[in-house]
Amino acid sequence: MSDQSRQWTAALVVIGDEILSGRTQDKNVAQLASWLNDQGIRLAEVRVVPDDAAKIGEAVNALRAINDYLFTTGGIGPTHDDITIDAIAAAVGVPVVVHPGARRILEDYYAPRGIELTESRLRMARVPEGAELIDNRSSGAPGVKWENIYILAGVPHIAASMIEGLTGKLEGGRPIVSLTVGARAPESDVAELLQRLEQANPSVAIGSYPFFRDGGYGSNFVVRSEDGDLARRTVDALAQGLREAGFEPVEGGI
Amino acid sequence: MSDQSRQWTAALVVIGDEILSGRTQDKNVAQLASWLNDQGIRLAEVRVVPDDAAKIGEAVNALRAINDYLFTTGGIGPTHDDITIDAIAAAVGVPVVVHPGARRILEDYYAPRGIELTESRLRMARVPEGAELIDNRSSGAPGVKWENIYILAGVPHIAASMIEGLTGKLEGGRPIVSLTVGARAPESDVAELLQRLEQANPSVAIGSYPFFRDGGYGSNFVVRSEDGDLARRTVDALAQGLREAGFEPVEGGI
Repeated sequence: MSDQSRQWTAALVVIGDEILSGRTQDKNVAQLASWLNDQGIRLAEVRVVPDDAAKIGEAVNALRAINDYLFTTGGIGPTHDDITIDAIAAAVGVPVVVHPGARRILEDYYAPRGIELTESRLRMARVPEGAELIDNRSSGAPGVKWENIYILAGVPHIAASMIEGLTGKLEGGRPIVSLTVGARAPESDVAELLQRLEQANPSVAIGSYPFFRDGGYGSNFVVRSEDGDLARRTVDALAQGLREAGFEPVEGGI
Repeated sequence: MSDQSRQWTAALVVIGDEILSGRTQDKNVAQLASWLNDQGIRLAEVRVVPDDAAKIGEAVNALRAINDYLFTTGGIGPTHDDITIDAIAAAVGVPVVVHPGARRILEDYYAPRGIELTESRLRMARVPEGAELIDNRSSGAPGVKWENIYILAGVPHIAASMIEGLTGKLEGGRPIVSLTVGARAPESDVAELLQRLEQANPSVAIGSYPFFRDGGYGSNFVVRSEDGDLARRTVDALAQGLREAGFEPVEGGI
């Protein structure tokens, strides 16, 4: 049974020079965040670090100590710039070993394709000693779990396949309910209304996201809470307040 | 004159519950990273933190101490969840004041539109004491510079307008040259070649980015260096090595 009163948190370390150089647009933050919401786990912080063992280790140790779960994406392929396993093993103080199960997965994957399991490919079977594997249905190499550290691929659809396999397996609290209401109101016109509502309901968070579209200003207001009823009541009160201020609320956002 | 031998670095703190909830896909990391490359400044780390003053302050102080520049995006609008200015002022130990120039910008922006400068809107003229303004041509409220901290909007096109105004004004080193060559080669087939090339050229970084497309595997190899000639020679050697291994190199990537 989950402890409903406790808030579960995760952090994510995104590993890769390609994100920090601007070459690659990260997609793992958004996809992991949404998935964590459904597991009742809040994504508390993200750090993006380069392919540098010391930086990876520092971020992993700092964040795994203060969160229930620590995820990483990137750096687990077969090439020289894939150093995540070594960096994390060093950071937690265990040796790197070849995992027999991972080796078997790679053998089963490459053999029928007539591809040799070279030393480079075998790198993908290396894990910090004591690790378990995370299933990967979309390509051969598995993800790696070591205590509260979940080591995922950087390629978004492979990372997606790995978290898919973890669905329902991580202990969390109640899923966070997120409701949106939009209005053709400049956010500065409703700032006081929002503040009043949030102060009256400390366990909801209200975000205000302005836009300029079709020649006019507007905002979407996102109400988030683990208490679905409270989120609902807050959105209703917000819609009422918008109406009183002369703006038509649009349920679900604009 | 820039010091050509020194490497200039920046860090970015992305502020916002909407990124950590998965609601909003961040675009500022990639756009700031590309722009920094052109300024000869390397983006060394990114942290994404929630709308929480303590978390913002902690990330800003940790990163501004070890980098030449510290950028933030998000949390500078008129609503209750826009707490970046207060959080940074508290973190660096100065009071928040209304900047007369920012107030004037807001007055000039709202008056001709017949919009009242309410207390909420005036929030956007508040800065940590001692700050300068960063020009914003796309909407009224300016960005804020305090010592080596550059406080930008979260909305990507407004952030883009603010960094546009900073182009050429930040001291940096040589722009980082990035050259790409692709091949229909699984990255595990060329892992040893890449490692040999990188070891032979410690001042280049080679990234390997695999893909699966049109029914086949391939990889793009990105060679980055402040030394453009060295990057060029390394790409030529890589193309030669790919050819010798039986793969046709594609300049510019696939």
